[in-house]
Amino acid sequence: MSMNNICVVGVGLIGGSFAQALKQSGFECTITGVVRDQEKGDKATRLGIVDQATTDLAAAAASADLIMLAVPMLSMREQLEIIAPVLQAHTVVTDAGSVKQPFINDARACLPHLNRVVPGHPIAGKENSGLDAVDPRLYVDHKILLTPLPESDDDAVELVRHLWEKTGGTVECLTPDDHDNVLAATSHLPHVLAFAMVDMLASRQKADEVFRYSAGGLRDFTRIASGETTMWRDICLTNQEPVVKAIDELEAHLAVIKKAISEKDAHTIETVFRRARETRGRHIVDKS
Amino acid sequence: MSMNNICVVGVGLIGGSFAQALKQSGFECTITGVVRDQEKGDKATRLGIVDQATTDLAAAAASADLIMLAVPMLSMREQLEIIAPVLQAHTVVTDAGSVKQPFINDARACLPHLNRVVPGHPIAGKENSGLDAVDPRLYVDHKILLTPLPESDDDAVELVRHLWEKTGGTVECLTPDDHDNVLAATSHLPHVLAFAMVDMLASRQKADEVFRYSAGGLRDFTRIASGETTMWRDICLTNQEPVVKAIDELEAHLAVIKKAISEKDAHTIETVFRRARETRGRHIVDKS
Repeated sequence: MSMNNICVVGVGLIGGSFAQALKQSGFECTITGVVRDQEKGDKATRLGIVDQATTDLAAAAASADLIMLAVPMLSMREQLEIIAPVLQAHTVVTDAGSVKQPFINDARACLPHLNRVVPGHPIAGKENSGLDAVDPRLYVDHKILLTPLPESDDDAVELVRHLWEKTGGTVECLTPDDHDNVLAATSHLPHVLAFAMVDMLASRQKADEVFRYSAGGLRDFTRIASGETTMWRDICLTNQEPVVKAIDELEAHLAVIKKAISEKDAHTIETVFRRARETRGRHIVDKS
Repeated sequence: MSMNNICVVGVGLIGGSFAQALKQSGFECTITGVVRDQEKGDKATRLGIVDQATTDLAAAAASADLIMLAVPMLSMREQLEIIAPVLQAHTVVTDAGSVKQPFINDARACLPHLNRVVPGHPIAGKENSGLDAVDPRLYVDHKILLTPLPESDDDAVELVRHLWEKTGGTVECLTPDDHDNVLAATSHLPHVLAFAMVDMLASRQKADEVFRYSAGGLRDFTRIASGETTMWRDICLTNQEPVVKAIDELEAHLAVIKKAISEKDAHTIETVFRRARETRGRHIVDKS
């Protein structure tokens, strides 16, 4: 299958890093960035992030062999509505959204069939966003999760996998529901907790003192609360049920610890802390 | 006042780093490390962490001009009982415990008077502990909080301040209650949350998958859940009331977010997230 034209919609951290990594990998294709204002597009071209840029999504989509939608979750629908009428039969449509089921619902509502749709989500990011945050090494050694549909053509899935591997990512497939449930627990919940934590500290009397006496533990714990608030709002809204379920679970575990502390139940406190520490040690490798 | 003999009880991360930093600062004194087994003491001497080491706390305390208690919170009482009968009148007693009011209660119960007692707490640490984790630069540019008592002699407070400044720390004074309340919120609560978070993930079906698909956000968020579990258990037990109060507050803020997500209340979600993000940006500086 020929792969001449790749159209990346949204040239921020995620889409821009995908485009630039692909270009630097030597993969032969022309990458067109679709942007909201041409000035940003010109800058992206000048920086070597894309080969060319346009504000005309319909025109770019019409000649594309693959379209990567790297826009906020709540903008997906609008983009799909624009590309639906102009898509060629062979054009693969993939995305980089943080929640998969809503994107699939949008695609199902907008597109005539889903055999060329391959939903995806790179597990990589930074607190910074926009063109200046673009990093062609963003995906190196990071997991890229694809959630193919029953309708997805094998060659479309393989193509998307191949492109992500070119960026340095490691591709794994799982179901959309598993994806949304797992990410609610490992990513969306920690973000919600970090936001809640900082908000709670800010509401304290002597809030200035509170932050003045904080150390590296709090800094690292709340780093993810410096992320883009609109993006995280949209993730919570679109992945509502799994996120609420994850908060419920966390509340239950926190309640056990609170009860143990209230009752000076040293054994339970230590059992939970030790189990958590050992679990983390088995599964998570810290940067040196 | 002469300051010939400093006795550091507990030559782990906190006490060992204090001793070695002091030695390397050129401060003229003899530092005796009190350890549980002589082998460890010999190693600490060999590594240049202390000048000499002993397992005999009473003997070391008897000839000390200043005693630094750097042992777990729940061991403080035992050490104070041993040193009480042998203390010279001028000997300053300070500590590095994470919770101040319990140490003060212990000191009040064991010592005949408190005018030479200067409770303290360095806001510094690492996940590693023990002799191998000792780092003479641990306190550089870190806050050292002292919570002098109404009875504390000025010259005793100034001496403890001076020693910490020699290690590179920045000393501030506050009341024991303020200390314990602030630290419950900025340090003890984040640790409890990190332990609860990992414990919740571990209890999920497909826990392996959950961790496999996690990224840097979760790693940093839960880093503090790799700390010493006994130490954190003791902190929760000794700072019970402020920690439970901080958990209550966090639960209330989390409930607001959960309700907003459940009701798809985009405005409230974004308001809280934005407020948290801005507050963090004002108060916390990330490492580059």
